[in-house]
Amino acid sequence: MKKDLTSKVCKKNILAVRDSLEVLNGKWKLPIIITLQDGPFGFNELEKSIDGITPKLLSKSLKDLEMNGFVKREVIKGSPIQVHYSLTNYSGSLDQIIDALRDWGLQHRKHIIEQ
Amino acid sequence: MKKDLTSKVCKKNILAVRDSLEVLNGKWKLPIIITLQDGPFGFNELEKSIDGITPKLLSKSLKDLEMNGFVKREVIKGSPIQVHYSLTNYSGSLDQIIDALRDWGLQHRKHIIEQ
Repeated sequence: MKKDLTSKVCKKNILAVRDSLEVLNGKWKLPIIITLQDGPFGFNELEKSIDGITPKLLSKSLKDLEMNGFVKREVIKGSPIQVHYSLTNYSGSLDQIIDALRDWGLQHRKHIIEQ
Repeated sequence: MKKDLTSKVCKKNILAVRDSLEVLNGKWKLPIIITLQDGPFGFNELEKSIDGITPKLLSKSLKDLEMNGFVKREVIKGSPIQVHYSLTNYSGSLDQIIDALRDWGLQHRKHIIEQ
């Protein structure tokens, strides 16, 4: 075991933060969740709404978000068949993170402009 | 401009969150900042304290953190010369994000275990 100098609390905090970063990694998952707060949306609607995302990245991110229990995929019978994506209740657990990232992003932009 | 369906508020939120994700991207920056809350530390001490990080990743992350104004690098005169890394006041602006990620990581681990 590497001898290290950081406290047990610090270790526990780092482990928990790394868990979060692993689930939310990449630049598209949180933007998709924020967009779906106005949902539900179909795949094409989502793709149009998120600047810079490609169908491949959107598809991969949606699969991860479904697997982690944040997004529901529903097939709507009819002709043609439609597929809708919407948020699960569990995605609400991310609100504190999204608010913190939004608030920090807004103040960081001001901080950079004022420098 | 792509016709899209999401509200202006949603667009502003996404932009701010993406700003934050861009600055804090990768799995090492926040763990380094949390570790340095117990600092200051030298490079080797930091490397020993963060499980799984390599000298190359630590060096790159420290440079990014310095550039973004979160970390200070100080050369301590003496024989041999020492280099210390410590947090700037501005890094305190990340506390809300770190707390939110830590709290969510802790509850997510419980959520997964209970499933």
